[in-house]
Amino acid sequence: MRFSLLLAILISALLSSGCASLSRPQPLVLITDFGNKDGAVSAMKGVAAAVDSRLMISDLTHDIPPYNIWEAAYRLQQTYKYWPKETVFVAVIDPGVGSARKSIVAKSNSGHYFIGPDNGLFTLVGDESGWNEVRVIDENAYRRKGSEDSYTFHGRDLYAFVGAQLAAGHLRFNGLGQIYPTAQMVRLGYQKAEISGNSIKGTLPVLDPNYGNAWSNISRSMLLTAYPKARKYRVVIQKGGRSFFTGTLPLVDTFAGVGKGAPLLYFNSLLNLSVALNQANFAERYGIKGGPEWTITVSPVK
Amino acid sequence: MRFSLLLAILISALLSSGCASLSRPQPLVLITDFGNKDGAVSAMKGVAAAVDSRLMISDLTHDIPPYNIWEAAYRLQQTYKYWPKETVFVAVIDPGVGSARKSIVAKSNSGHYFIGPDNGLFTLVGDESGWNEVRVIDENAYRRKGSEDSYTFHGRDLYAFVGAQLAAGHLRFNGLGQIYPTAQMVRLGYQKAEISGNSIKGTLPVLDPNYGNAWSNISRSMLLTAYPKARKYRVVIQKGGRSFFTGTLPLVDTFAGVGKGAPLLYFNSLLNLSVALNQANFAERYGIKGGPEWTITVSPVK
Amino acid sequence: MRFSLLLAILISALLSSGCASLSRPQPLVLITDFGNKDGAVSAMKGVAAAVDSRLMISDLTHDIPPYNIWEAAYRLQQTYKYWPKETVFVAVIDPGVGSARKSIVAKSNSGHYFIGPDNGLFTLVGDESGWNEVRVIDENAYRRKGSEDSYTFHGRDLYAFVGAQLAAGHLRFNGLGQIYPTAQMVRLGYQKAEISGNSIKGTLPVLDPNYGNAWSNISRSMLLTAYPKARKYRVVIQKGGRSFFTGTLPLVDTFAGVGKGAPLLYFNSLLNLSVALNQANFAERYGIKGGPEWTITVSPVK
Repeated sequence: MRFSLLLAILISALLSSGCASLSRPQPLVLITDFGNKDGAVSAMKGVAAAVDSRLMISDLTHDIPPYNIWEAAYRLQQTYKYWPKETVFVAVIDPGVGSARKSIVAKSNSGHYFIGPDNGLFTLVGDESGWNEVRVIDENAYRRKGSEDSYTFHGRDLYAFVGAQLAAGHLRFNGLGQIYPTAQMVRLGYQKAEISGNSIKGTLPVLDPNYGNAWSNISRSMLLTAYPKARKYRVVIQKGGRSFFTGTLPLVDTFAGVGKGAPLLYFNSLLNLSVALNQANFAERYGIKGGPEWTITVSPVK
Repeated sequence: MRFSLLLAILISALLSSGCASLSRPQPLVLITDFGNKDGAVSAMKGVAAAVDSRLMISDLTHDIPPYNIWEAAYRLQQTYKYWPKETVFVAVIDPGVGSARKSIVAKSNSGHYFIGPDNGLFTLVGDESGWNEVRVIDENAYRRKGSEDSYTFHGRDLYAFVGAQLAAGHLRFNGLGQIYPTAQMVRLGYQKAEISGNSIKGTLPVLDPNYGNAWSNISRSMLLTAYPKARKYRVVIQKGGRSFFTGTLPLVDTFAGVGKGAPLLYFNSLLNLSVALNQANFAERYGIKGGPEWTITVSPVK
Repeated sequence: MRFSLLLAILISALLSSGCASLSRPQPLVLITDFGNKDGAVSAMKGVAAAVDSRLMISDLTHDIPPYNIWEAAYRLQQTYKYWPKETVFVAVIDPGVGSARKSIVAKSNSGHYFIGPDNGLFTLVGDESGWNEVRVIDENAYRRKGSEDSYTFHGRDLYAFVGAQLAAGHLRFNGLGQIYPTAQMVRLGYQKAEISGNSIKGTLPVLDPNYGNAWSNISRSMLLTAYPKARKYRVVIQKGGRSFFTGTLPLVDTFAGVGKGAPLLYFNSLLNLSVALNQANFAERYGIKGGPEWTITVSPVK
């Protein structure tokens, strides 16, 4: 009898903890170019809340410049690894909505899910983490009921709807559609960082928009392996063959290492080489913008 | 004995699931003209979190232009139907705070709740869904304790406080105050879409602010019923008798159906007729703004 | 037997309720100068969600002007008291990151927690509530694993990480580091409101950025105690000895108490004396900005 009672308590305790952990939904993270002024983002969130009102729904950003797939790809790469495994990212920068472009759900080797149009949005995450498996979402089977007449808002009618169900555990990744060969995924082209003679050439994929620092794709480990002792570098920033900045800059641990307004090299929070002015806007002063067409070349100076 | 044991397990399982579902709070959605730069929205959220820290508190937008009741009314209509039933919307565009304007809680026939000042904010939701019942909030009974000296922030001291309690299930709609006849609610005037001769005239209630598309209140079903075969329309957009745009435009399924920069007609995500340039800003180019004083007339062209 | 059964039910009920309330996490509130355009805030949220995906993570604002510690201090003071006790505020305006500045966690007498760099961010909360206890965070013990190479993003690698654990109940305040004497905390200087002859002089610490109202630090109780019957005041606003506004203004209960566009005095939502134009932007019209260097003098007029 005692044993039966203990069993009853054990089972009910398991059921109890299950309500908090076993069935706990994973976060749903949204990134779009919709801005925050109208109701588009809230419509997406409403669709997700209707799936499960316990979901943590979080905004990566909705201020991606309209149609700028590259910048969204970068923001995804910048953040996904800080979120727990099985977090679901829904990305809606979708100039081709209504065309033949595919809708995909991609599972990275890091264990995160990415849902959106197959237009290159996931290029940088894939290059960093690698893909575990990618599937084409069966739009007819999984789109929100009653949304068949609307061609223009897959973010609400398909991606947020499927993403919320995946995050809530109502749908399984394996069932969402056929496997999509990763070699067929649309890719954005960009120059990877490489050593050439006594310099490293890379790109400035993006700006830190609030401070105006220019971030490169030259990693800390690449630079320090190539030039372990250098503390000063000749820096040239170009676009389309024209130079926008040339200077000799110290590589510092912290902004406090140079005077106010002075230029410097540092490793940003992603441990990539970056260019800044201490407490001023580097990009604005030199007319530099981010993007795969911007190059940076650094050469060590004694 | 076996039976008793099964009963115990059953009851505890019910209790367990109860903790996740029976008492699960409904979402609380906020819309204001406060912006996101100061602490006003966060004070509202703090008041709500103090009621129940499990609440999903979601921002519809806080970037309604100051005092623009019309635009908030539109954003509410644009989004409420995507949220689950019993979601509580708190709307604070309140130029009359401190005057004799009433505070109301309205339950729509769709099953959603709307809390805010009675100044027309809920006109468009009501026209679309109809009201199940509306009540005047008893301000003295329900305002936050200690807030009696503050006349200027009902959003924090009354609406967020009552809204959170309604969403959390601590207060019931029926007890919030006397029934308010819907005919007494403040209404915003606007022109409904109507057929006149060989054209349909309606309004451009709002812009899609991020892309600059102009949205009308002419529905897909009205247009397709009147002109089932037309694929081109003469479009005239006016304000105060002056024409801002005149042109002959194709009606397309997707933006990809015309060249980059070309004008087009499409049905937006609410299935209303809208005017856009493919990958460019229609409203900016022609100086068009949204609002009930803007008219659009469309006539089919062979 | 009956008794055993009741016991089993009771225990399982307790376990059930425990999953919803005993272990319920406290809210985590973020304030930064990062803006919402890149991934910095989302990286912080991801770190927090990885600690506990049930956390309510709320944005106070991320639009603090870059490096403006004063304004963040004001926004914290403006909002903390509306949040439930044990809410954890993480503040990252951190121009000195990487320098010798300390990282602290402060518990106010109001029962709230504040985490961030010791650079004055918590001056105004401390002056209002008083500190229960402050501790220096042991950075080596508590920073996120794998973040040792990054010097520039304590917001993500230390503050959000520690804050989430404190909010989730995984870490205790007492264990976070050595006690830090409050007298050693970095303070921002500012002029407190004071009576001088027949006038009160104070500062305009901040603007209401959306409406352009100027908020003072002269409290309702101070003004009404000094001049219980006055309904009109001579108002002078200065900076660096230069006058930006001089006028005689009525003190009104609500904006509706004066004509559209007219200047007025009122008590804002924090019950401090403030200056506004009814439905227009006072600060913009007179070139007034907020900050501790702006003074306001008010004298009663018959």
